[in-house]
Amino acid sequence: MHYELLYWPEIQGRGEFVRLALEDAGADYSDLAREPGGMKQMQAVLQAHQGFAPPLLRAGKLVLAQTATILHWLAPRLGLAPASENVRAQLNQAQLTLADWIVEVHDTHHPIASSLYYEDQRAEALRRSELFRKERLPKFLGYFEATAHTSGRIHYVDLSLFQMIEGLRYAFPRAMKRLERRHPKLVAARDRVARRPRLRAYLESERRLPFNQQGIFRHYPELDA
Amino acid sequence: MHYELLYWPEIQGRGEFVRLALEDAGADYSDLAREPGGMKQMQAVLQAHQGFAPPLLRAGKLVLAQTATILHWLAPRLGLAPASENVRAQLNQAQLTLADWIVEVHDTHHPIASSLYYEDQRAEALRRSELFRKERLPKFLGYFEATAHTSGRIHYVDLSLFQMIEGLRYAFPRAMKRLERRHPKLVAARDRVARRPRLRAYLESERRLPFNQQGIFRHYPELDA
Repeated sequence: MHYELLYWPEIQGRGEFVRLALEDAGADYSDLAREPGGMKQMQAVLQAHQGFAPPLLRAGKLVLAQTATILHWLAPRLGLAPASENVRAQLNQAQLTLADWIVEVHDTHHPIASSLYYEDQRAEALRRSELFRKERLPKFLGYFEATAHTSGRIHYVDLSLFQMIEGLRYAFPRAMKRLERRHPKLVAARDRVARRPRLRAYLESERRLPFNQQGIFRHYPELDA
Repeated sequence: MHYELLYWPEIQGRGEFVRLALEDAGADYSDLAREPGGMKQMQAVLQAHQGFAPPLLRAGKLVLAQTATILHWLAPRLGLAPASENVRAQLNQAQLTLADWIVEVHDTHHPIASSLYYEDQRAEALRRSELFRKERLPKFLGYFEATAHTSGRIHYVDLSLFQMIEGLRYAFPRAMKRLERRHPKLVAARDRVARRPRLRAYLESERRLPFNQQGIFRHYPELDA
């Protein structure tokens, strides 16, 4: 089956969690908004299907929005989740915890509104980031350390967790350097994903956009003090 | 099958979205943390199953966390979602959009950290709430107006949307009074749910906790100015 991913062409953002699954599985997919005229097509699909926001996945007649929904549906078809409904529910639970974490990372630099520039909410961002580094980051890392998956089959949640660690290393290098020492299983789980041949080839390709200051993970040194 | 809901006993919170499904379906369930000694048991289950946070659902040997995961798994068993995987994925998409909305409602009064009192983030809350009322609330209401479900079978998402409207009316009565006029389908969908006999009986019972100032939906008049 051919899949179409629809996501903003200039950032990794939430689309990257879907892209990693497609790439790791060697799926037949296109990245619509990165093709000529693709942005217009993406906007038309969003309107027609009343999607709230990208990413969207198109698979035949089915159009889905919401990263975790897309991955829950897609992963068994890509060999990145088993068929068992109960195991899939456990994976979905982990993915939604990760989704909560992503919102909190985003809100470190945009605690007031996505529609305002960072510079217009910098004071609030400093305050929120300090508590994020002290309270929330250790809590999420601790949860995923306790549930880290260092052997057995790789699932899509492992790929998303890899992306999370990469993003946090970019955004909060100081805090992560300090905290990673206490989360060796999580780092091992990240390293195991990084060794996957198809994933490594993708990460080294031009298809992998670099982290930048428009995405979810942004590096403002003052937020990582 | 007997279900156990595990959630904080003093607030509606996220647990209420699961409770509404169980109540509307007339399911055989217990509300563990509201029974004597239940809080200790809930903490033990959280620890043993490495849940990140309540609500949790226990069904035989299965323990699930994350509201949307619980509902996705539970709803077909309660007659509140069809068996079709693609329809369930569409419902999950809507439920996750609703979950995003809930986070934004919570963050109107806690934009900096859940661990701080409202009074210690009141200035930031004023700023965030103003933009929430002007930009985000109309966007979410518009999305659910366009997709509102005013006929056909009731699904769990309809029950969650009912709860969302109830909560918003409690938290932002002024903004909602103004905005509801422009969202008649959404109000009709809410009213259709409110007429369900089992749900109405539940809402009038002592099992329905009142909204209060510890939950997700809080009424601070200054945030609804």
